[in-house]
Amino acid sequence: MQGRHFLQIPGPSPVPDRILRAIAMPVIDHRSAEFAELGRAVLEGCKTVFRTTQPVIIYPSSGTGAWEAAIVNTLSPGDTVLMAETGHFATLWRQIAAKFGIKVEFIPGDWRRGADPAAIGAKLAEDKAHRIKAVMVVHNETSTGATSRIAEIRQAIDAAGHPALFMVDTISSLASVDYRHDEWRVDVTVSGSQKGLMLPPGLGFNAISEKALTAAKRNTLPRSYWDWQEMLKINSTGFFPYTPATNLLYGLREAIAMLHEEGLENVFARHERLAAACRAAVKAWGLEILCEEPAEQSPVLTGVLMPTGHDADRFREVALRNYNISLGSGLGKVARKVFRIGHLGECNALTLLGALAGVEMALADAGVPHRTGGVMAAMASLQGNGGPRIEAVA
Amino acid sequence: MQGRHFLQIPGPSPVPDRILRAIAMPVIDHRSAEFAELGRAVLEGCKTVFRTTQPVIIYPSSGTGAWEAAIVNTLSPGDTVLMAETGHFATLWRQIAAKFGIKVEFIPGDWRRGADPAAIGAKLAEDKAHRIKAVMVVHNETSTGATSRIAEIRQAIDAAGHPALFMVDTISSLASVDYRHDEWRVDVTVSGSQKGLMLPPGLGFNAISEKALTAAKRNTLPRSYWDWQEMLKINSTGFFPYTPATNLLYGLREAIAMLHEEGLENVFARHERLAAACRAAVKAWGLEILCEEPAEQSPVLTGVLMPTGHDADRFREVALRNYNISLGSGLGKVARKVFRIGHLGECNALTLLGALAGVEMALADAGVPHRTGGVMAAMASLQGNGGPRIEAVA
Amino acid sequence: MQGRHFLQIPGPSPVPDRILRAIAMPVIDHRSAEFAELGRAVLEGCKTVFRTTQPVIIYPSSGTGAWEAAIVNTLSPGDTVLMAETGHFATLWRQIAAKFGIKVEFIPGDWRRGADPAAIGAKLAEDKAHRIKAVMVVHNETSTGATSRIAEIRQAIDAAGHPALFMVDTISSLASVDYRHDEWRVDVTVSGSQKGLMLPPGLGFNAISEKALTAAKRNTLPRSYWDWQEMLKINSTGFFPYTPATNLLYGLREAIAMLHEEGLENVFARHERLAAACRAAVKAWGLEILCEEPAEQSPVLTGVLMPTGHDADRFREVALRNYNISLGSGLGKVARKVFRIGHLGECNALTLLGALAGVEMALADAGVPHRTGGVMAAMASLQGNGGPRIEAVA
Amino acid sequence: MQGRHFLQIPGPSPVPDRILRAIAMPVIDHRSAEFAELGRAVLEGCKTVFRTTQPVIIYPSSGTGAWEAAIVNTLSPGDTVLMAETGHFATLWRQIAAKFGIKVEFIPGDWRRGADPAAIGAKLAEDKAHRIKAVMVVHNETSTGATSRIAEIRQAIDAAGHPALFMVDTISSLASVDYRHDEWRVDVTVSGSQKGLMLPPGLGFNAISEKALTAAKRNTLPRSYWDWQEMLKINSTGFFPYTPATNLLYGLREAIAMLHEEGLENVFARHERLAAACRAAVKAWGLEILCEEPAEQSPVLTGVLMPTGHDADRFREVALRNYNISLGSGLGKVARKVFRIGHLGECNALTLLGALAGVEMALADAGVPHRTGGVMAAMASLQGNGGPRIEAVA
Repeated sequence: MQGRHFLQIPGPSPVPDRILRAIAMPVIDHRSAEFAELGRAVLEGCKTVFRTTQPVIIYPSSGTGAWEAAIVNTLSPGDTVLMAETGHFATLWRQIAAKFGIKVEFIPGDWRRGADPAAIGAKLAEDKAHRIKAVMVVHNETSTGATSRIAEIRQAIDAAGHPALFMVDTISSLASVDYRHDEWRVDVTVSGSQKGLMLPPGLGFNAISEKALTAAKRNTLPRSYWDWQEMLKINSTGFFPYTPATNLLYGLREAIAMLHEEGLENVFARHERLAAACRAAVKAWGLEILCEEPAEQSPVLTGVLMPTGHDADRFREVALRNYNISLGSGLGKVARKVFRIGHLGECNALTLLGALAGVEMALADAGVPHRTGGVMAAMASLQGNGGPRIEAVA
Repeated sequence: MQGRHFLQIPGPSPVPDRILRAIAMPVIDHRSAEFAELGRAVLEGCKTVFRTTQPVIIYPSSGTGAWEAAIVNTLSPGDTVLMAETGHFATLWRQIAAKFGIKVEFIPGDWRRGADPAAIGAKLAEDKAHRIKAVMVVHNETSTGATSRIAEIRQAIDAAGHPALFMVDTISSLASVDYRHDEWRVDVTVSGSQKGLMLPPGLGFNAISEKALTAAKRNTLPRSYWDWQEMLKINSTGFFPYTPATNLLYGLREAIAMLHEEGLENVFARHERLAAACRAAVKAWGLEILCEEPAEQSPVLTGVLMPTGHDADRFREVALRNYNISLGSGLGKVARKVFRIGHLGECNALTLLGALAGVEMALADAGVPHRTGGVMAAMASLQGNGGPRIEAVA
Repeated sequence: MQGRHFLQIPGPSPVPDRILRAIAMPVIDHRSAEFAELGRAVLEGCKTVFRTTQPVIIYPSSGTGAWEAAIVNTLSPGDTVLMAETGHFATLWRQIAAKFGIKVEFIPGDWRRGADPAAIGAKLAEDKAHRIKAVMVVHNETSTGATSRIAEIRQAIDAAGHPALFMVDTISSLASVDYRHDEWRVDVTVSGSQKGLMLPPGLGFNAISEKALTAAKRNTLPRSYWDWQEMLKINSTGFFPYTPATNLLYGLREAIAMLHEEGLENVFARHERLAAACRAAVKAWGLEILCEEPAEQSPVLTGVLMPTGHDADRFREVALRNYNISLGSGLGKVARKVFRIGHLGECNALTLLGALAGVEMALADAGVPHRTGGVMAAMASLQGNGGPRIEAVA
Repeated sequence: MQGRHFLQIPGPSPVPDRILRAIAMPVIDHRSAEFAELGRAVLEGCKTVFRTTQPVIIYPSSGTGAWEAAIVNTLSPGDTVLMAETGHFATLWRQIAAKFGIKVEFIPGDWRRGADPAAIGAKLAEDKAHRIKAVMVVHNETSTGATSRIAEIRQAIDAAGHPALFMVDTISSLASVDYRHDEWRVDVTVSGSQKGLMLPPGLGFNAISEKALTAAKRNTLPRSYWDWQEMLKINSTGFFPYTPATNLLYGLREAIAMLHEEGLENVFARHERLAAACRAAVKAWGLEILCEEPAEQSPVLTGVLMPTGHDADRFREVALRNYNISLGSGLGKVARKVFRIGHLGECNALTLLGALAGVEMALADAGVPHRTGGVMAAMASLQGNGGPRIEAVA
């Protein structure tokens, strides 16, 4: 297909040219002083993005690996954890826990909203014996476009006076949605490189609290690659216990710089603006947004329900072939029923509007019943709200 | 500004990633066998783009240099040439000719259409003494968005039975608009790298006929850098008489490959489709297209007249600051009255629609009177005409 | 430091420009048909490098991760394995096994030779009860520069009629030293991206036999990220069960192409030639090569013993600061006593000779007793043996 | 050929990775404020490299173009200039002058030394009528490896009390050899991008004095592309009168930064050190250095005479095929009699030593009579003189 591809999946997100150039720098000796400087820069820099003063661990891994790391460091076979079924990725995380012998209490969900703080609070209140060792929540459910209210869940845990660890998956929210590891007293924040950090996939993250570290010293799951203690010992010097993914770390250094150049608050506001515009388009088309709770609709992606009888994957195929745009597929139990529009990372108003134009035209091409006017609605949304303004010309 | 910049000026056009990577290859010895292979590949490959079997010369220069080369190789001080005032660039070419002592008969124009074949024919018919040594026309006037009908001008020259050389500037049309150096018996085709060839600026081209070469052997303007004969002698081996711009040649090789992968006819058709969509948007906005003659409206850019009392450059500034899009300014006598939307090179439907959304929003932001609906009109234009289609889903 | 850095550590090895450009390509949708093509290309291409028709698994991980994967897929807590103490990396692998509750019989070694096939055979012959579940050997011990004779160890296992799995770490030998997964009936070959494959670090590999797969189905170690079965199921379509490190896969595709352009046999021969030259230099300096067994001296690196009383790390520091060359440090029990010269991956005669010149000058600068003439000896070695020759000029 | 190519021609010189990445940045609008910032940065930055406070003009051209620019801006047909036959490039510059109707008094030379200040002084002293309009000298004769003493030539001009313009070609010396446009009151300094500036070819430079500018206002040669006045008028705003080679300007900005990071004095000292080492090697081989005058032997390249009966180009072919190294050919009247070793730009001790090893081995392969030991001699030369030193280890 000719011209620039519109990669509008909810991650991996488009990687800015600056970062692509950074990852193309020659490899250096991972035991050199020059590397130690890079190592320290990214280890410290990450903290500013997770909003923590506590350690952040960087793995050469996918986000899935970072999930596993959170589990094997803190939990032991037979432990019980509380999770909320927000969608496909919450379900996958649960499956990983189960593979390691963890019992998961899975608060059922309909995949159309975030985790319910009240339900979590109630479960914890019931658990007088403190059998539940951890509450594990997905901040932004990439499969649905619903965010969970982490601050409120923290309050619910506190209100229940429950000592469970609090673990949050921010794989698709970090550096796109306001998130505060320390302020919200999260014990393990799990993340990945390929979404808001605007990097290629290949890095997984764990930000960890003192309490999580203490738990790690006690737990009995065997581990080596994911082991925090070994990592932290060596990270203090800027090095890693095994060969790190040097070129992705170059990219990470650049990404952190870019985020601070824009300003994290501006980054979050931009994602909010783009998401609002995208939702305006979906509503104008007369289609249904998967996430039913407005306060939980995701700043990084919008899940869209296909009208009954229309296959979302066939539609996505039409969009790709006719307009060179990749949209996210429905996953798990919403497969073929949902498509997802990513608007995260290196995304701005015109890129989103081009993408929405592609969706609107592809809906027509694919014979999906809809009203036109989605792009116009998105423009109206962005118009009064689109960023820095200068005075109109007389 | 955050996110991807929309470079919608009528050149330099956005350079595809593939080409940026190609120009970042290490420099090689410009006298080596490896270089000779590259040299031959680009010298031969260019011919397929100019649609000629005759030589194409590649200069390390801007397109302006290639204009000068056409002049100093074929004309002598005191010679008369016939040019048509199609816009700013025709005017600049005329000024260059004048600097070299060439007398220019400049058929006046209002910058709202291409060169008039009939007017050219009439001038030539009058010139019984064959005082006119060359007819020099700009194929696509980048300052206005009007193309000249080269085949018809050729016919007019033939009909007048006039021996003048025919020189055509294709700087902003080559590899975007159908052009046939041999079939139209053009004597010198001038071009540059930074438009349809999708390269950074830095290469100038002359495709030359046997008749032009013969003229070159006789003319008296001093020249060295631009001298065709020295160049052709050495080009036959794949080398150049002075150090060539190696890295841009890497890019040129890649660009030629990309053009043939897409197919030149498809490239032309794509530009036509995008231009039609852009014009549909302008009309929907209720704004006036600078080029008045529909048959001459450019496939590579659209010049738009600002409503009276509105400054085009202030508007462009609003668009840039609010939406991270660069639009072309009005040049010369339409300065501040016109802005130009480029839709050439690495451009596809969604990129153009994003750009048009930026224009539409900026018109509002800048308080320029207009109707909304331009993007929708462009979508409607592209919808039924947007490229390869697959069957709609039942 | 000015000019090109000489990265002469035994990995990460210098990444060729071609590969750096490949990894800088834009990320694509990891669920698209385009990705599936990439996925299949690298999954199949890897087999040609491991010389196997059986599956190769690619992890987003370091080589350490691939070690762990080999263990957790095939072994169960309480299992006994047989390993040989060839050096630091064999020791590390042993420690990982221990962390997973595996009992390791560790045939002691002095870090100056490869694993002893006879000793392995003897241990297996003793083990009538077939308590030993796996023989785990490092093909090229990166910490010492000694290779183990894998084919002979295979023969020893066969001679003992022992059913143990055979697992080989080829992290620093693959694509540099002749290696044959199928012919030598290795059950798990472990590898990484950052050595002979000439990629940045970030990919780990397991090539696996049918027998290993069968063992995997029975073993009881919990696993998810490293789990072969899930991976193989999805790999058959060209996809991965979790987000793969797309940009490193671009590089892998390019690396495989480059290896085949040169020809694997030529790649191996080149490493042999360079290693012989390096050893000639070390001998000429009057220094001692760490690996005492000539037949086991590594084609990819040469470990050099410092004269007593001289600190290898101080010497390396002198070399780096005076000549912009990185040499490998001594690790584990040879720390500060040994330095290592890498000559693998993107390395040729002149690069090696430049590096050896740096070593020779740094030895003098650092006051390390040595004879001059090392570079000359290396040149003499390469002279008659340096690759394609053309006829001398009369 | 496998591995890193050794590009040891005296330019184009190897381009550092940093610069290659810089030139691969996306093109920007050449009429934007962002471009003006780039334009001003490079126009000002260049002055620090030419050591001038006067204007420097940047052309999209080869160095040859910059030669022509110097001529057509300052001289008129029939003018007489004084040049010195230092080698092939002085001869080429003379030919260009001749093409523009300039009469050249060419002080003959044997291509084995720089221009003779005394001879120039004598010619000027004779010229009572001030018929000679310009003295034109090549600072570093790339074809021979001889530098001319510009400061002394300036003194000779002054001593003769002659008003001639002083024009110096620094194409292969700028940013490698000490050069002072203002202090030496040079009127036009000609240069190019592809040598000491470490860029790909494609930019030509003229640094110009007030006196040269005054001459430019009077002279009668027709010109447009090369015209200084038009350029200077627009450069004051950071823009250019025609589309500049944007991506090479990105590279230029990076190159200027790199030169100042190292420090110009350190850059010059490094070139001196490398050149001394190269000459030590040539002498050790028993071969003859083309430049006979030690004080004039070039810091950027060393021309080497082949023993009688041996063809330099056959030898270079052997070196390329056996060792993947490009050496410079003999040009003009020393064709096939001389080869040239470049040691400029991105070059350091180990790169040079690798290259010299390649030369030494290729001399043997090609059957060229020589003594071994050249590399050792170069090492000895660099050893005591090789850059920053740290204390030797006890």
